Amino acid sequence: MPETIFSAIIRGEIPCHRVYEDDRVLAFLDINPLSEGHTLVIPKEPAVTFDELSEESAAALGRVLPRLCRAVVRATGAPAYNLLQNNGAGAHQAVMHVHVHIIPRYPDRPEGRAGLGLVWRPGALDAQAGAALAGRIAAAFSDGAAQA
Amino acid sequence: MPETIFSAIIRGEIPCHRVYEDDRVLAFLDINPLSEGHTLVIPKEPAVTFDELSEESAAALGRVLPRLCRAVVRATGAPAYNLLQNNGAGAHQAVMHVHVHIIPRYPDRPEGRAGLGLVWRPGALDAQAGAALAGRIAAAFSDGAAQA
Repeated sequence: MPETIFSAIIRGEIPCHRVYEDDRVLAFLDINPLSEGHTLVIPKEPAVTFDELSEESAAALGRVLPRLCRAVVRATGAPAYNLLQNNGAGAHQAVMHVHVHIIPRYPDRPEGRAGLGLVWRPGALDAQAGAALAGRIAAAFSDGAAQA
Repeated sequence: MPETIFSAIIRGEIPCHRVYEDDRVLAFLDINPLSEGHTLVIPKEPAVTFDELSEESAAALGRVLPRLCRAVVRATGAPAYNLLQNNGAGAHQAVMHVHVHIIPRYPDRPEGRAGLGLVWRPGALDAQAGAALAGRIAAAFSDGAAQA
């Protein structure tokens, strides 16, 4: 895995506005926030994408997220928020180290300060195709069970 | 917490295209997918938003996500994907039961089948304001430590 700015932040070589840290997880403010309180939560384990992360790190990250979300909401008063985690350059990942965005959403603030914008263009799942696809994903899950 | 369609799916009263289930977590295909393989991962524990979820459910959900992401990627061949979890109507939450979206991203497919669209309008964090805000979030985290 390549060195990233987050590796240097984890090692303490680059400063950050830290909000939380434990043995497995570090959380700090995004320096290019989409809104007030935009926080990044990262595993200390080096992994580019979420599928490459160990179950232990993923569980530790999940475990602390409710408390972190409560803290961000309480400190900012945000009425809503999005959690976002991007995997791959094609999905808007910019730093190649797993990071979860906590992005407060302020619907009444102007664009550029309101938080994450989503473009939602849903289709409809065909029942037969859906059953087949669910079966393929379930089979891939079973095949991948032993792999970290 | 109000009854939702997900409560009925968890109880098995409404069918779903299930891809995974354990004591705490259920995963199934979104019937209004943004792209092929769009999967929802939900805790069985009733909670409207992530900040209301118990640490145990959040950890269990986090733990299974890497395997689920691998399974979705393997079954679909998607080159990238987003994890998204919306909290509050103002943040695009439609079903009032915590759900994590796994949304494959296919940059070369047409709109409506390519996956999640993001509108990213970042600002810049003022160093002094950032330090103060990080301190407020950290303090709120400590205050909220004992609360589920």
